[in-house]
Amino acid sequence: MVEKMGKLRRTHMCGELRSSNIGEEVVLMGWVQKKRNLGSLIFADLRDTMGIAQIVFDDTISEDLFKKAEKVKGEYVIAIKGKVRERESINPSIPTGEIEIIADELKILNESETPPIYIKDNDDVADNMRLKYRYLDLRKPSIQNNLKVRHRTSKIIREFLDENNFVEIETPMLTKPTPEGARDYLVPSRINAGKFYALPQSPQLMKQLLMVAGMDRYYQIVKCFRDEDLRANRQPEFTQVDIEMSFVDIEDIIEINEKLLYKIFKEIKGVEIELPIKRMTYNEAMERFGSDKPDLRFGFELKDITDIVANSDFKVFSGTIKNNGEVRGINIKGHESNFSRKDISKLESYIKDFGAKGLAWIKITEEGISSPIAKFLKEEELEKIIERMDGNKGDLLLFVADKSKVVFDSLGNLRVEVARRLDIIEKDDLKLVWITEFPLFEYDEEKERYVAKHHPFTHPMEEDIHLLETRPQDVRAKAYDIVINGDEMGGGSIRISDSKLQERMFKALGLQEEEVKDKFGFLLEAFKYGTPPHGGIAYGFDRLVMLLTDTNNIRDVIAFPKTQSATCLLTGAPTYIDSEQLKEVHMKLDLEK
Amino acid sequence: MVEKMGKLRRTHMCGELRSSNIGEEVVLMGWVQKKRNLGSLIFADLRDTMGIAQIVFDDTISEDLFKKAEKVKGEYVIAIKGKVRERESINPSIPTGEIEIIADELKILNESETPPIYIKDNDDVADNMRLKYRYLDLRKPSIQNNLKVRHRTSKIIREFLDENNFVEIETPMLTKPTPEGARDYLVPSRINAGKFYALPQSPQLMKQLLMVAGMDRYYQIVKCFRDEDLRANRQPEFTQVDIEMSFVDIEDIIEINEKLLYKIFKEIKGVEIELPIKRMTYNEAMERFGSDKPDLRFGFELKDITDIVANSDFKVFSGTIKNNGEVRGINIKGHESNFSRKDISKLESYIKDFGAKGLAWIKITEEGISSPIAKFLKEEELEKIIERMDGNKGDLLLFVADKSKVVFDSLGNLRVEVARRLDIIEKDDLKLVWITEFPLFEYDEEKERYVAKHHPFTHPMEEDIHLLETRPQDVRAKAYDIVINGDEMGGGSIRISDSKLQERMFKALGLQEEEVKDKFGFLLEAFKYGTPPHGGIAYGFDRLVMLLTDTNNIRDVIAFPKTQSATCLLTGAPTYIDSEQLKEVHMKLDLEK
Repeated sequence: MVEKMGKLRRTHMCGELRSSNIGEEVVLMGWVQKKRNLGSLIFADLRDTMGIAQIVFDDTISEDLFKKAEKVKGEYVIAIKGKVRERESINPSIPTGEIEIIADELKILNESETPPIYIKDNDDVADNMRLKYRYLDLRKPSIQNNLKVRHRTSKIIREFLDENNFVEIETPMLTKPTPEGARDYLVPSRINAGKFYALPQSPQLMKQLLMVAGMDRYYQIVKCFRDEDLRANRQPEFTQVDIEMSFVDIEDIIEINEKLLYKIFKEIKGVEIELPIKRMTYNEAMERFGSDKPDLRFGFELKDITDIVANSDFKVFSGTIKNNGEVRGINIKGHESNFSRKDISKLESYIKDFGAKGLAWIKITEEGISSPIAKFLKEEELEKIIERMDGNKGDLLLFVADKSKVVFDSLGNLRVEVARRLDIIEKDDLKLVWITEFPLFEYDEEKERYVAKHHPFTHPMEEDIHLLETRPQDVRAKAYDIVINGDEMGGGSIRISDSKLQERMFKALGLQEEEVKDKFGFLLEAFKYGTPPHGGIAYGFDRLVMLLTDTNNIRDVIAFPKTQSATCLLTGAPTYIDSEQLKEVHMKLDLEK
Repeated sequence: MVEKMGKLRRTHMCGELRSSNIGEEVVLMGWVQKKRNLGSLIFADLRDTMGIAQIVFDDTISEDLFKKAEKVKGEYVIAIKGKVRERESINPSIPTGEIEIIADELKILNESETPPIYIKDNDDVADNMRLKYRYLDLRKPSIQNNLKVRHRTSKIIREFLDENNFVEIETPMLTKPTPEGARDYLVPSRINAGKFYALPQSPQLMKQLLMVAGMDRYYQIVKCFRDEDLRANRQPEFTQVDIEMSFVDIEDIIEINEKLLYKIFKEIKGVEIELPIKRMTYNEAMERFGSDKPDLRFGFELKDITDIVANSDFKVFSGTIKNNGEVRGINIKGHESNFSRKDISKLESYIKDFGAKGLAWIKITEEGISSPIAKFLKEEELEKIIERMDGNKGDLLLFVADKSKVVFDSLGNLRVEVARRLDIIEKDDLKLVWITEFPLFEYDEEKERYVAKHHPFTHPMEEDIHLLETRPQDVRAKAYDIVINGDEMGGGSIRISDSKLQERMFKALGLQEEEVKDKFGFLLEAFKYGTPPHGGIAYGFDRLVMLLTDTNNIRDVIAFPKTQSATCLLTGAPTYIDSEQLKEVHMKLDLEK
């Protein structure tokens, strides 16, 4: 039997009562976390979004009321009125542990069947159950806390940007399909038969147009979409903090974003990050860490030994080098004894995912060198290698010989994997770094031409512009990423505002005039009418919140996430639809048999 | 020739300089609004998003610099350095009118072709030009101001809700298609062949699930989508301020929303609205104003004369009444002389859009009654009508005889149209009203059954629940709309939280069990596990901003709006796509020949 609240109104939240409330009459409403029936006494833990309070029913209330209290079960929704009093046995593990409420009124506002998952943190129920019963999973304090941190973070970001004269402007969700870049989510148009909108992968062009429009400083916290095969921690829709400014160069953008990051970490984590944030060029990051998202919380830096082994009798090394490859290594300092041959062969199979054919290793043990490759190396070579690698007793040296890309990918990931296995990363350590001077282009093997590493509107570094036509691979971009603990949290660039330079850029990309006009014509047209110098940045908001909540799973910071096959286990989306509905948008299915 | 900013950095915005800045050296950047060349003197108005400043170039600068200044044209982007000085001839019409800047440095940051539209407010260029060159249209101070008011309004809303313990939570954009309600925008799934997502028409079900999840107080400023044929002031995507609360009844929701509205009007318009806001039942609104969105800024209220003319010899009236119709009128008080016969026949053709067959009228002139219908009415009938209508010399009485719906629609719209033609509405008048006690159901002629007037989760009024099965047409809902100056700004309801009541509701709607399960199964499942009493409201944010900026055109409060055929004249969206792209999402075109 479900009752109405009637005139009863909540006076406090369960979680906010303290001993200073003792003696007050309060009305609480929430969910029954658990109930203990001791015969003449009933204890119930009542839970709301702020915490838990202990409710006591005793024989001072009517028999009817007591019987009603007996009926209450876990996850029932109840309202109680009563007086706050000191608890006999204080529970120091919860904030309300010094008090309890002796009830003199009870209403059962709703009943509950036995929930299919427990409402408690770290319940190790299967992921698909958590997603199917998301409304129960969301009752867990840890997940609710994540969503609250998410909210507070967006609030802090907005406050900061508001104070700095940024205007939040909404850009369209139904936009023009972008033939370059990731795959679009498409939306067929009913009114314009045969035509399609795309959901935005980012508001990039729109925010540049806002700069052309003289809006000066724009931001938006906005949903973006990419129809990619989902890896872990990817969602088909994700949230971006999107920022653009006029009349700025790199330093201006970095400066204001450092202040923003400082404020976020200060207010959410209570940590004052050191300003200015460290900077590292793309080349340095690759050379030292094998990655443009280096995790600086530990060492194991890459060293190049190509010159030492170029003419070695060890053909795995020298042969690779002759074939335009290189050999680099990392030193797992002081940890040789943590890795058995079996462990090392596990590391070897780990890096095969990144294209490496094998992992060479040298252990410097108490008893001397232990290595399957040592016998192929000349004494002098071995000495030079150990010197270059700063090898000492207790060290494990790991080497990969391959094309540059494979070497960097393998060792860059391997150093992170090793640190993870050794569990040497301090939980509260926080290492921020700006990666700068990215290459403007990268070579696309499939398309057999250069493509823009960021996007085709990225401004080249002034001193490299003259190389656009002759040595495009050497042109660096006015681009920057902010990397925190090895994750790319955001990135941006100064955009090209000079249409002549933009034309040279398109040519360097091998785009035909017709193609350029079709894809970006409206932007180039806009650029004719007085475009200010401008640039910006975009943060991955989901990732940022993961970092701020110490969460490894992106689904723990999103209220209603999707699975890796892009389905919602709660609602069943996506679903089949009537052929009538499909006909209205001028489409039919084209399913393979 | 385009120059770089180099080390030059903006010190001030053009629009913020005042006489207190006289003597300061400043750097300004912006667009040239206009330039006057007086031979040895050049004046340029420099514009940025904060306003305009006058720049002077004279013979104290080098010849080269002066020549460069001569080259500058309208909408060129320039940077200048110079000293603020008192202006010789003060311009009181702009805030910076007391000062000018005598330039000693000039950089041309970008050139501009002659723009196809003027950058000035109230330029009466064609709408399609404004939309095609939106980035130029957005340079107009009035449109920039609208976007800034929009931003400030969302900021105020967020601040208020944050202070009141609401948490902003993002709900999915890729959701389950909703077979009831308006038409969905569909998104084909690539990974799940043959299945579709829909873009949300509102986060209604998701926010209710957040209440089941115990999030207590939710809000979101969020894009919603409806694929409807677009009328004026409708856009395919629109923004909603979406709010939901637990453990509340109507009064709690109205109370907090009145505080929110008070704050918005206070901070944006400087107007203190009177609290509590007036309330009116749906029935009263219909009887007096012929509309559930009554504009209370003027009278012309409806009066029912059905009883007086039920047996009249004037068959247009009595015949209609015998056919279950009715006759109502409005009194255009004191304005008979403003309406010629020709004017009245224009009004008649206006109401034909609402299904009316004709407009009967009586003028009470200095010379007596003038009316084409008077001759059909008995003296006594005429007297009673005039008495009922409160008719006096100078009044124009207008009548419609038809089915109830047509009468209300015609007269409800007619009174607004007449007020508009008479131009009697004070620009700054602000009349807010809550419309309450809506009918829970309305009869759908096409479906031949009752449908939910709001949505099927709306809670019936307690005292009407017993009528659900027997007299559904008489059941009123715990629903409320906030109407401002005749526009519905928002609406909401208390939701059903009792699954037994929800079942009765579905039955009353004639929905089969299978259908209910398919459409709302996941919600009903959720309701089994402890659902709190809850309710909420949603505001049409675009409309609210229109009201706050005194704008009649929804496109003036949206950065990149679409046309009535849902196209973007700027980017060309929607567009044709490759059949390859279509094939990837398992679709092909189904175009009629």
